[in-house]
Amino acid sequence: MTLVNGCSTATIAVNDRGLLYGDGLFETMAVVGERPRELDRHLRRLLNGCRRLAIVPPDESILRREITRTCAGAERAVLKIIVTRGQDSRGYRPAERGKPTRILMLSPWPVYPVHYRHEGIVATRCQTRLACNPRLAGLKHLNRLEQVLARGEWQDEYQEGLLLDTNDQLVEGTMSNVFLIKGDSLHTPELKHAGVAGIMRERILDCAATAGIAAHIRNLTFQDVEAAQALFFCNSLIGIWPVRRLDDLSFGDHRLTRELMNLLDLP
Amino acid sequence: MTLVNGCSTATIAVNDRGLLYGDGLFETMAVVGERPRELDRHLRRLLNGCRRLAIVPPDESILRREITRTCAGAERAVLKIIVTRGQDSRGYRPAERGKPTRILMLSPWPVYPVHYRHEGIVATRCQTRLACNPRLAGLKHLNRLEQVLARGEWQDEYQEGLLLDTNDQLVEGTMSNVFLIKGDSLHTPELKHAGVAGIMRERILDCAATAGIAAHIRNLTFQDVEAAQALFFCNSLIGIWPVRRLDDLSFGDHRLTRELMNLLDLP
Repeated sequence: MTLVNGCSTATIAVNDRGLLYGDGLFETMAVVGERPRELDRHLRRLLNGCRRLAIVPPDESILRREITRTCAGAERAVLKIIVTRGQDSRGYRPAERGKPTRILMLSPWPVYPVHYRHEGIVATRCQTRLACNPRLAGLKHLNRLEQVLARGEWQDEYQEGLLLDTNDQLVEGTMSNVFLIKGDSLHTPELKHAGVAGIMRERILDCAATAGIAAHIRNLTFQDVEAAQALFFCNSLIGIWPVRRLDDLSFGDHRLTRELMNLLDLP
Repeated sequence: MTLVNGCSTATIAVNDRGLLYGDGLFETMAVVGERPRELDRHLRRLLNGCRRLAIVPPDESILRREITRTCAGAERAVLKIIVTRGQDSRGYRPAERGKPTRILMLSPWPVYPVHYRHEGIVATRCQTRLACNPRLAGLKHLNRLEQVLARGEWQDEYQEGLLLDTNDQLVEGTMSNVFLIKGDSLHTPELKHAGVAGIMRERILDCAATAGIAAHIRNLTFQDVEAAQALFFCNSLIGIWPVRRLDDLSFGDHRLTRELMNLLDLP
């Protein structure tokens, strides 16, 4: 099921700014029992993103109706919502009152081996670096060539890649956020210069606060990774993936990771 | 006239990676008398770009036939070619042997006031900075949110905006390259960390070499702009636009700009 501006179609106009410039945002959600998990958080991030990029936000009640329509009958699936600045024929200049395009796409649930979650994954440090741009940092926008290049560095030998920015700061995974565990506390990058502020990251921070687990949002480098007792990647689809090996670094299981996995209602 | 993979249609699939990730490249050409200007240079850059991004390049003879078909009957127009990595449902991971999407779009020639070229334009220095990423520098890829944000800084009061990168290096205009004139020589940024290596920039450098005009490709900062006698923007559609005012800096006419405008066969 795919809806474009409320119509059942799987195509968009070639002069949509989403294609021409990557001028838009997206959200990816786990759908369980016809309902997207953490929908309010995802919609809040999407609408905040529209504000930051000065894209006219889609009407929330229309969007919610379309989400219900798209997810009808889906027991377990992935919902992707894309909002672009819409069609335009004026070059880079964004229209003052544009008509955004909204796209809702339902796709099959990706079945990951359960041992990724239980025993942990094998990851690599990417050669590709993320560029720093405070104007775009945190946003889940459609300019994702860096992630494509990073993910192109390996085939099936790793399950995720760790990304640093051009200033040697730790940022995230290619499709996930990252947390380090040192002692009894969580540490995750700030994302002020690069990276996507993920919904699962936000949930983990909230959950840690509620459970009294110390969590620090701060500048981190690869030295922090080397000094960590454990690390894990997270996103709305994978939940939490502990890392058992990152290139030649080995990490153990950690009770904090297990505690978070139990506290969060993972998809 | 719009062709997508050889078919007369103006839509693409919503799961095209061009839309999902800006995973592709584009070219914009001036069409005069049914023929795109500098077609060989544009195709060379497009195919080089495909190589750098590991996108399967479109067959050049097919592309040339489609270009002829798209430009038929067009006395004066703009041809835009987009090549994306194609459709895919595997996340950021690029397919090893993907099937790229090629899009050819013909649009009306933009009529700019002639005094832009004769008397010069008024420009501004953008607040938006370009992020530095050597992997993407020089490429005319589809990740153009920075240009959209930069162009969103003004309405009609300026004709172009000057962009620096996050390391204070001069890069380009929002839709053009930039040259400074100091004494009897041309100076243009290196584009190793950010920016698009434009076809008109390349032609100007070739033309300067032939005419015995000294031209330097090097690191430049805003101090170089302040110290310049003249500056101009260039691209395949505007040709050369001398700048008469950049915010509170005024620039005079320069014989080198006029010489280049005469030597180049501008659209």
